[in-house]
Amino acid sequence: MTTRYVLKCVLCGKEFEPQPERYVCDVCGLDGTLDVIYDMKEAGSAISCAALAENRDMSLWRYRAMLPVEKEAHIPALAVGWSPLYKSEKLADTYGVKELFIKDDGRNPTASLKDRASAVGVAKALDFGQHVVACASTGNAASSLSGFAAVAGLKSYIFVPEKAPAAKVTQLLVYGANVVLVKGDYADAFNLATAAIEKFGWYNRNCAINPYLVEGKKTCAMEIAEQLEWSVPDKVFISVGDGCCISGLYKGFSDLMQLGMIDRMPQIIGVQAEGAKPIYDAIQSGAERIAFGPADTIADSISVGAPRNWAKALRAMRKSDGTAVAVTDEDILSAIPELARASGVFGEPAGVTGFAGFKKMAAAGKIGKDERVAVVVTGNGLKDIESAKKSVGKALLCEPDIDAFAKMI
Amino acid sequence: MTTRYVLKCVLCGKEFEPQPERYVCDVCGLDGTLDVIYDMKEAGSAISCAALAENRDMSLWRYRAMLPVEKEAHIPALAVGWSPLYKSEKLADTYGVKELFIKDDGRNPTASLKDRASAVGVAKALDFGQHVVACASTGNAASSLSGFAAVAGLKSYIFVPEKAPAAKVTQLLVYGANVVLVKGDYADAFNLATAAIEKFGWYNRNCAINPYLVEGKKTCAMEIAEQLEWSVPDKVFISVGDGCCISGLYKGFSDLMQLGMIDRMPQIIGVQAEGAKPIYDAIQSGAERIAFGPADTIADSISVGAPRNWAKALRAMRKSDGTAVAVTDEDILSAIPELARASGVFGEPAGVTGFAGFKKMAAAGKIGKDERVAVVVTGNGLKDIESAKKSVGKALLCEPDIDAFAKMI
Repeated sequence: MTTRYVLKCVLCGKEFEPQPERYVCDVCGLDGTLDVIYDMKEAGSAISCAALAENRDMSLWRYRAMLPVEKEAHIPALAVGWSPLYKSEKLADTYGVKELFIKDDGRNPTASLKDRASAVGVAKALDFGQHVVACASTGNAASSLSGFAAVAGLKSYIFVPEKAPAAKVTQLLVYGANVVLVKGDYADAFNLATAAIEKFGWYNRNCAINPYLVEGKKTCAMEIAEQLEWSVPDKVFISVGDGCCISGLYKGFSDLMQLGMIDRMPQIIGVQAEGAKPIYDAIQSGAERIAFGPADTIADSISVGAPRNWAKALRAMRKSDGTAVAVTDEDILSAIPELARASGVFGEPAGVTGFAGFKKMAAAGKIGKDERVAVVVTGNGLKDIESAKKSVGKALLCEPDIDAFAKMI
Repeated sequence: MTTRYVLKCVLCGKEFEPQPERYVCDVCGLDGTLDVIYDMKEAGSAISCAALAENRDMSLWRYRAMLPVEKEAHIPALAVGWSPLYKSEKLADTYGVKELFIKDDGRNPTASLKDRASAVGVAKALDFGQHVVACASTGNAASSLSGFAAVAGLKSYIFVPEKAPAAKVTQLLVYGANVVLVKGDYADAFNLATAAIEKFGWYNRNCAINPYLVEGKKTCAMEIAEQLEWSVPDKVFISVGDGCCISGLYKGFSDLMQLGMIDRMPQIIGVQAEGAKPIYDAIQSGAERIAFGPADTIADSISVGAPRNWAKALRAMRKSDGTAVAVTDEDILSAIPELARASGVFGEPAGVTGFAGFKKMAAAGKIGKDERVAVVVTGNGLKDIESAKKSVGKALLCEPDIDAFAKMI
């Protein structure tokens, strides 16, 4: 049932056999993240539009023939993927496009798109006979890993900077992760995690470094295509931090193209916050490599100055004839209530950043009236109530008296 | 496509035609909440186990023939229901039962079971040509109503006590509800809401008073039955506040019995917090009516001293040969991480109260080894991070040094 695959460096193209310790290219180092390349002839006999139409598995595992997991028994028992894709006529009218679709990935088990990656990552850890998984993160990847590790019976170590928000640390502790608060900043946490993973031989769930995680994320693109009956949108917008989610979109559409299940690539538009935009800068300047920069934005999940998956991210935009957009924190905040009111989807700041980018590009007249657009919401608004609070006004305060109330409204 | 139905008083049995202003029985008053009684012959020709097996609508609207909504166009465009039902062998082993299932209703659009009620309530408001919906609430019903009203284009007024938690008020404001902070306590908010609804002719989304909302909630029971291939569990546990959710479970299983789709009723077990247990007290004493009492528990969603749907709630337990259990706040808090670690489901305090009740009853030897048990988790843990924080220990604090870390673990 598992399709054969090899790993291939995104920079130099060198190929590797899948092995537990094979994370990145031995020539290009950390920059040389690896793609999972399937035997498409074999995959094509196991997956098709017609077969999927009969498939009642409403999770990302419906695309199992295109996922690098060996054993059925290693699939974690949490319902992940097949998140809703809503059509918003209201927003399409407002912004003058033919159709607008909102993909609500905040509906996943731990409330973010990261669950797609964790589901595959935890299954791979089991495939490789690992018992401990680890990562450095302060956000959604951490809570997602801790949830999936718990249900799969794996031990997890999560390294976070000492000043990580209490709410996020709490979610990790609830799932039973071993949470290590590292005295220092995120780089210190990352370095200690890397050293510990090497010393103790734990399984590395860093989305850029572990080649299998983008495979989980690619299912978001596959679902968009299938939910639109294989007629892909003209443009797809998604927020960009370390570059893994946008790489997943590209990989998903690209795999479908190779399988002949879609007939063209959508343009993939990456949206970054003004305060953390190294990938946007590289797209603007046409640079081959990115320059690491500062990271200061309210959208904590994409507050990344040194994105590890930059090579795949640049490829996603360039090869799909897409582009990058940068938006301010004010743009992001105001997108929260606007999207919630129009579509019912309440996103966290990084969750609505793709929508903010769509708005900016539409306002600049860079989207055609005949275009069909999809926007991915990557995380649930309940993850960051403090930021949401900054995005709205105040409630009415009223005496408990009907006449007083009637006068107020 | 809509099955004919009448409304019938739960206390005296008097029947009424469905009309916009018909909320409760005109003889029994507020205590006389109404059941929706369908023409079962008509419904039976539109719904069956076989037809559902072919139905690809993975939302509560798959049971549309048994829902009191007139127009397809009035169904709000948010994917609600068909939440996951997980089998936990680990918890079944721990507590010595044959099978244990966890129904994760925190996966709904605004992250609670209340969305099932709001979906139907908003559709009914549109059926009745209403433009404004209102309720008094501090919790999940309020955020749920505001989300569904937003997407349906209805105006909403939500009355909350002045001291309502900022996080919950924020969620309401994000969805664009008109939030009225009432100077006073919950009773003041409820009274002002009632007066305003009457004065302005708004549509009343109070779950006990509006007879259609329990119909939405009943789909949780229908899904449990269908997800278990129509072989219902022996016992189903659910938390009880105002009594609407448990009434929904009873109504769902009861409707399925009448349709011949299941062959017996599960025992329905209502679980209350020790600090707010008027329904538990009535079950213990065998009282015909309940006595209102205090409400003081960490589980805010069930912190109800004066439950409005008490008559249906008592019926649910008594007619199903079920019972009531009361648990302490400590029981509730410790159930949060235990459930999250064993099943991957992170519930809010009221969300895991059903599980806490199951644990207590199992520990008392009151559940047979051969029994199959389902537990409903009514709301997502992300709704109340502060309480979750009280349920777990602290993280390790470590210098950014691998030798220091290695010594610690």
